[in-house]
Amino acid sequence: MTSSIFPARGSKSEIETGSGLQPKFDENGLICAVVTDHASGELLMVGYMNDEALRRTIETGEAWYWSRSRQEYWKKGGTSGQVQKVQEILTDCDQDAIWLKVTVEGNGATCHVGYNSCFFRKIVLDDAGKPVLEHSGGERVYDPKDVYGK
Amino acid sequence: MTSSIFPARGSKSEIETGSGLQPKFDENGLICAVVTDHASGELLMVGYMNDEALRRTIETGEAWYWSRSRQEYWKKGGTSGQVQKVQEILTDCDQDAIWLKVTVEGNGATCHVGYNSCFFRKIVLDDAGKPVLEHSGGERVYDPKDVYGK
Repeated sequence: MTSSIFPARGSKSEIETGSGLQPKFDENGLICAVVTDHASGELLMVGYMNDEALRRTIETGEAWYWSRSRQEYWKKGGTSGQVQKVQEILTDCDQDAIWLKVTVEGNGATCHVGYNSCFFRKIVLDDAGKPVLEHSGGERVYDPKDVYGK
Repeated sequence: MTSSIFPARGSKSEIETGSGLQPKFDENGLICAVVTDHASGELLMVGYMNDEALRRTIETGEAWYWSRSRQEYWKKGGTSGQVQKVQEILTDCDQDAIWLKVTVEGNGATCHVGYNSCFFRKIVLDDAGKPVLEHSGGERVYDPKDVYGK
């Protein structure tokens, strides 16, 4: 999908090796954003942006997303205080993904369940060979009730 | 979207804190997979899996994707030799994203343009305040012609 904000997509060569930012949004107008902690490199979350959320993120230096479940703009940390200050933004070869390196404000955590990272469980095989989830280490760093009131 | 392979989605609490793997695939039947280098933690690429690609990845220990552009299964490294041996698989709180920690076989690179990571350009503002791309460091580690013959 083209964007009304960003330039039209050029040739494969321009997209892959050029200096023009020509992000590709999917058929729903969204691009995937991978978010890591700037200091530790830890993967914190994956979110989605439409063109306006990407524009706001670039211009303000704070991460904005498009909530697929709520169908609305979502400034990360608006409720929780866990605002993401963007230290660096990258894109990939075909410009259909965004990588934000951030520092997190507020209590410094990212996941609404109470962990630093949304990725707090790993997939392992149980004795019967069935994939199940187990905690990958890391304790809850805050009680969501204290932040979200529920 | 539900899957014919993985269990139906349970309650919010089960999904977010339980031990059941209940991945959420989007309306196209896909889930986002973030891929990092197991040793360095470097973000290598973002891919998409349908339920069968996720099943193959879990069962074989090598990363399989669904190519959105080619609309076909794609075993990473099938052509290039850059096979991703999965060291750990995680999922996030709402189980709508996958994180693969991998070691890369073959020449050890991931990007078809010739870099270790697909994320080799960062978004910066030019003198006029327009977002443009510049190399974020890191040289090409191989010539794609040697791997793909073109």
